[in-house]
Amino acid sequence: MSELATIREDDGAVIILDQTKLPRETAFVRLKTLADAAHAIRVMQVRGAPLIGATAAFGVALGLQEGRPLEEIIATLAATRPTAVNLQWALARMEKVLENSALAGRREIAWQEARAIAAEDAAANAAIGRHGLGILEPIARRKGRAEVMTHCNAGRLATVAHGTALAPVYAAQEAGFDIHVWVSETRPRNQGLLTCWELGQAGVSHTLIADNAAGLLLMQGKVDCVIVGADRIAANGDVANKVGTYLKALAARAHGVPFYVAAPVSTIDFACPDGAHIPIEERHAEEFGALRTQVANPAFDVTPAELIAGIITERGIIAAKSLGALKP
Amino acid sequence: MSELATIREDDGAVIILDQTKLPRETAFVRLKTLADAAHAIRVMQVRGAPLIGATAAFGVALGLQEGRPLEEIIATLAATRPTAVNLQWALARMEKVLENSALAGRREIAWQEARAIAAEDAAANAAIGRHGLGILEPIARRKGRAEVMTHCNAGRLATVAHGTALAPVYAAQEAGFDIHVWVSETRPRNQGLLTCWELGQAGVSHTLIADNAAGLLLMQGKVDCVIVGADRIAANGDVANKVGTYLKALAARAHGVPFYVAAPVSTIDFACPDGAHIPIEERHAEEFGALRTQVANPAFDVTPAELIAGIITERGIIAAKSLGALKP
Repeated sequence: MSELATIREDDGAVIILDQTKLPRETAFVRLKTLADAAHAIRVMQVRGAPLIGATAAFGVALGLQEGRPLEEIIATLAATRPTAVNLQWALARMEKVLENSALAGRREIAWQEARAIAAEDAAANAAIGRHGLGILEPIARRKGRAEVMTHCNAGRLATVAHGTALAPVYAAQEAGFDIHVWVSETRPRNQGLLTCWELGQAGVSHTLIADNAAGLLLMQGKVDCVIVGADRIAANGDVANKVGTYLKALAARAHGVPFYVAAPVSTIDFACPDGAHIPIEERHAEEFGALRTQVANPAFDVTPAELIAGIITERGIIAAKSLGALKP
Repeated sequence: MSELATIREDDGAVIILDQTKLPRETAFVRLKTLADAAHAIRVMQVRGAPLIGATAAFGVALGLQEGRPLEEIIATLAATRPTAVNLQWALARMEKVLENSALAGRREIAWQEARAIAAEDAAANAAIGRHGLGILEPIARRKGRAEVMTHCNAGRLATVAHGTALAPVYAAQEAGFDIHVWVSETRPRNQGLLTCWELGQAGVSHTLIADNAAGLLLMQGKVDCVIVGADRIAANGDVANKVGTYLKALAARAHGVPFYVAAPVSTIDFACPDGAHIPIEERHAEEFGALRTQVANPAFDVTPAELIAGIITERGIIAAKSLGALKP
């Protein structure tokens, strides 16, 4: 993995790129304990559903290394953030493997399984990129350039590698197509600046906009497709993602622009019947800065399945209403 | 007028509340020349369509007082901002009155006409409040409390007095009803903080949200109606207002929540056939802060007439498609 990897092992510890410092500063944090891992997830030093999942998996390995009971480790990590289901998915997978292991080998097995989760995320996202290229390539061939709108950061910074929503963009760029990305600021945490940073690093043309400008750009015909990530996809295809996603989906529908969600199958919560059952995290008012006013700060919203042209997974592009076919 | 008036005369000069300093600081600027007035409009020391119109009218008086030719004065002020039609409306009205006046009396007539424009704006907004109360009162009576969502600042700070979108809120509060306002931040210039400031001054309950959160709140049933202002209303009822307005209108429609526009008749541009003909101001990238990235910063968007439940004017609540009835 590159020096700028979002997460990597280092001699019994885990090194993460501190995303609360980006894009101003490229800084790393060394996670040595369960508490370090839980803190990193909670304060969003790592963020993005797939990366939260991978960090939690490594957090289990760190906790066992400290000699903590598995039950406490799982409970601590599960409580860090409520919406991204990859967190619970990774913890359930770790728990299942470890429960079936002899106590003596557990620490090493935990590291191995966390490595496997991370490697599988990178591979899934590469596959998402290949499938998503099938959407962007015809547009780029027909128009000379494909205009993609995204929201928040669902790029490589949100994952172990490649990204989800941006994986098709990177795949299209590698294939030599002309791609431009409209990046919404994503208040209040400004994850759009992370997206600008990583697209800039990769040499992908992009323009930052206020979240408010998405409707106008869609009305003006400046966007060929919208691709976003997901924090949890319900069994009926409703998608929870960073707050503001739903507004883009409504505007895309109003102008006949296809709206795609890119996510690994691990983001689908087959036990959750629909979007109304997805818990929406309420975050601190301080994320708006120091204000003397009452603030409401829901971090996610729900986009109904009917607004979604397709869900780009590592197993292909699936209609939001047909997710049952992917059920394990 | 109160000491905190957005605009007032003072001995041959005009004193404005500097809205670029609010809510951190309550500061005033003394406009003595045409250049002062043009600068105040351009850098948004005054903003909001009705207040831009009134400031331009006083700007004409200041320019004549300096001995400048009327044609130069009108051209200078007309070039300050492109979207709010009240600017052109006020300048056309001043020009017509002055062209028909003897040169000797022009300076005094300019002051008188500017005063009349300001007084009429205050009166129109008071009437908008009375008409809008007819929307909020039944909700408050039925539910015990009326939940209003607004965007940007279309309160008293955007006008000479009372506000447009907030006039019904103030009228409802004065009538003793329980009112709560959801205020969107309104990036990139954060005019939502102006709205929080003036609602706070008036003792109206309110909550700041990210622009992104509007769709979720509407989906959750937390909003009874949306009321926004307007910068220009086309003859067919399409409305240009602060960028992001359109996204709220789409979300309101998706959840059956009525979406109203409140504006004086002077905001209707009967010469403009539809929203596609309204010029959309592109503002500086610096409004996002110091960034090393490409930025697009359109300041307005267009909400189609079909999404608008009604336009609250001083002459009553009119269907967006029936504006012809108001044509002078």
